Amino acid sequence: MPYNIADPGRDINDLIVRKAKVFREKQGIDVRTGHRVESIHISKKSVSGAAKEGGAFHIPYDKLLIATGAAPIVPDVPGFDLPGVTVLKSLDDARGMKRLIQEHRVKRAVILGMGYIAMEMCEALRARGIEVEMVKPRPTFMPWMNQDLAAVVKKEIEANGVKVHLGQGIRMIDRTKAGLRVVCPDMTVDCEMVLAAIGIRPCSELAEKAGIALGPEKSISVDKTLLTSNGDIYAAGDCADAYHMVTGEKTWIPLALRANRAGWAVADNLLGKRTELPGVVGTAVFKVFDMEVARTGLSLAEAEKFGFEPVEMVIESVTRAHSYPGGSPLYVQLVGDRKSGRLLGAQMVGKEGAAHRINAPAVALHAGMRVDEFYQTDLAYAPPFGPTWDPMLTAANRLLKEM
Amino acid sequence: MPYNIADPGRDINDLIVRKAKVFREKQGIDVRTGHRVESIHISKKSVSGAAKEGGAFHIPYDKLLIATGAAPIVPDVPGFDLPGVTVLKSLDDARGMKRLIQEHRVKRAVILGMGYIAMEMCEALRARGIEVEMVKPRPTFMPWMNQDLAAVVKKEIEANGVKVHLGQGIRMIDRTKAGLRVVCPDMTVDCEMVLAAIGIRPCSELAEKAGIALGPEKSISVDKTLLTSNGDIYAAGDCADAYHMVTGEKTWIPLALRANRAGWAVADNLLGKRTELPGVVGTAVFKVFDMEVARTGLSLAEAEKFGFEPVEMVIESVTRAHSYPGGSPLYVQLVGDRKSGRLLGAQMVGKEGAAHRINAPAVALHAGMRVDEFYQTDLAYAPPFGPTWDPMLTAANRLLKEM
Repeated sequence: MPYNIADPGRDINDLIVRKAKVFREKQGIDVRTGHRVESIHISKKSVSGAAKEGGAFHIPYDKLLIATGAAPIVPDVPGFDLPGVTVLKSLDDARGMKRLIQEHRVKRAVILGMGYIAMEMCEALRARGIEVEMVKPRPTFMPWMNQDLAAVVKKEIEANGVKVHLGQGIRMIDRTKAGLRVVCPDMTVDCEMVLAAIGIRPCSELAEKAGIALGPEKSISVDKTLLTSNGDIYAAGDCADAYHMVTGEKTWIPLALRANRAGWAVADNLLGKRTELPGVVGTAVFKVFDMEVARTGLSLAEAEKFGFEPVEMVIESVTRAHSYPGGSPLYVQLVGDRKSGRLLGAQMVGKEGAAHRINAPAVALHAGMRVDEFYQTDLAYAPPFGPTWDPMLTAANRLLKEM
Repeated sequence: MPYNIADPGRDINDLIVRKAKVFREKQGIDVRTGHRVESIHISKKSVSGAAKEGGAFHIPYDKLLIATGAAPIVPDVPGFDLPGVTVLKSLDDARGMKRLIQEHRVKRAVILGMGYIAMEMCEALRARGIEVEMVKPRPTFMPWMNQDLAAVVKKEIEANGVKVHLGQGIRMIDRTKAGLRVVCPDMTVDCEMVLAAIGIRPCSELAEKAGIALGPEKSISVDKTLLTSNGDIYAAGDCADAYHMVTGEKTWIPLALRANRAGWAVADNLLGKRTELPGVVGTAVFKVFDMEVARTGLSLAEAEKFGFEPVEMVIESVTRAHSYPGGSPLYVQLVGDRKSGRLLGAQMVGKEGAAHRINAPAVALHAGMRVDEFYQTDLAYAPPFGPTWDPMLTAANRLLKEM
């Protein structure tokens, strides 16, 4: 949606992959839109709720799949119901934002939060010529990232005219004559649009009410076949948890590939073909203006939390060989475990090659590789793509010396 | 060198990393240029030869390192000694080519061979406004590559005005009034410059003469510590062989990272710190015009040769999500072993993301991953960088079904 919002020439409906009609008429699936399930009746093996048109419904099941996804967290402060204040979750949210912008009523926007969606949206809004200020209550910019790397991202955002306000909790949103006013303890910001992108939470209320076991951050706990604590109920998508391949523990990292993969696997399992998903390593990338930001595995703090003895290495390298024109800095962070020698995580920031590069340590994490083994891998080299020693290998070499 | 040759504004001497003087004066290394070693005397533990100035020399050693590199293969046909006919190995070769081009005497060039150097040089010469024709005797363009992918590369080269002549052995090079004439059985090509880039061979004559064991393609056979069959003699760089991590057999794949890595490892071993290099997986990338070409591991034919039961899958995917503008086709080939389920190799061609993507299967090959394990890896996704399922995962899924 952010990329569609960035482009006034594109219809938001381009993002619709398949309409309910196709499910019903071509695939023979009884899709009931406008039906809100309110209860799962475990003993009766049925669900019940209220339909928009037609009142109460009650549907029995042999097997049940909960795929309720995640919902944006809305700050509990006055003014969030004002027009021009929005989240970005549904197509309707995006449609509303586009309409607001299209009607030329938005000159200044405030984004609450500084996660992936906030970053992508700050680029999209700048592309539409809108002044953007980002606000968050905690004092640290991208706290999950090594702070040397986070500083590079912050600089990129600020270089593109975005104002970043850290340590500013929001008290309320006020209506003014001209638009909206975001009120923080130490400042106010006037604008015509407020986007709340402060995070998401799993939609697990139905499951919880039915007594189904929950996992991290109240996500629905599932085994490797996506089965919940109830033998007839599966959960998949952003509402469900997963095993983390580095820690071996449960985690909740709601991202598209895992959600999609879980959808396919749960279909297999529902239909009797046993399929197991081993787990995730938390690979995530985004682009903000000209900068690629990538991570996989554990941050230093996460590694400490999970009982490792982590050692961190950060290097600045280059995206192209010195003999090839147009290179720029590439920052690589690696985390290793002093006890086992294992690679635990990687982070990268740079204008090219950071996003795709992260897949190499991601695969190494799946394989449980030690840092010395990763250091010996035969990675690609040609002058347009990096130095002879890929920056990841240089980082691994220096990390080994620290370990 | 190709990228330097492409740019008339850059001095070829920019490529000199360190002069002999620095070795001598700053590092205390007795570098003797102009000294050609002619014999290794195993029993006497010495080398002897002739110096440019000062005649014969004889130097004893405790430990000897052979780092003689590789030499371009020169076709054995008349006319290779003519001015304007060259290889590209030394800085002097590049200097000569640049001078020839600078003096505006080159309008048309013929490149013999279609390997990495040939590809990079055809782009460099086109950048200088030179008409380029490529000629090779064998009928197959990039025979090591899946031919669907090879066709994409060939199309890219031809779209940039390069003529590709397959199945044309060269009979001789003739001098004409205006320049040179390359004479093939079915055609002649007039030009002002001929570059022979038909391959390289390891410089192993000295080692062979001394009775040191040779490996594949007459490279010098070394163990994981870079020790040759003689307990006091090491070999490293493009003259030496390596273990292939997929086949477990010796291989000769002369590329920069392995050569550089072997240099560091041999220094450790010479100085008494035991360092082992497990081996290579044959990762190689190059850029030709706007196309990135990448490979790792075994091709289908190589896998067959080494006794695997290989299955190949080729898919066409895209470099960006459909929601993000500017995507282009990405072609991915994977090879798996039906018997063991192992991933054996990968190849990719595309305008972005092919070169860096290859590192993921490269790491998987080092880890000995099966295709089903690789299919479960948590690879990066964001719309600017590819579809939700990375094309490598889609290829793995389809390969699994074939296997």
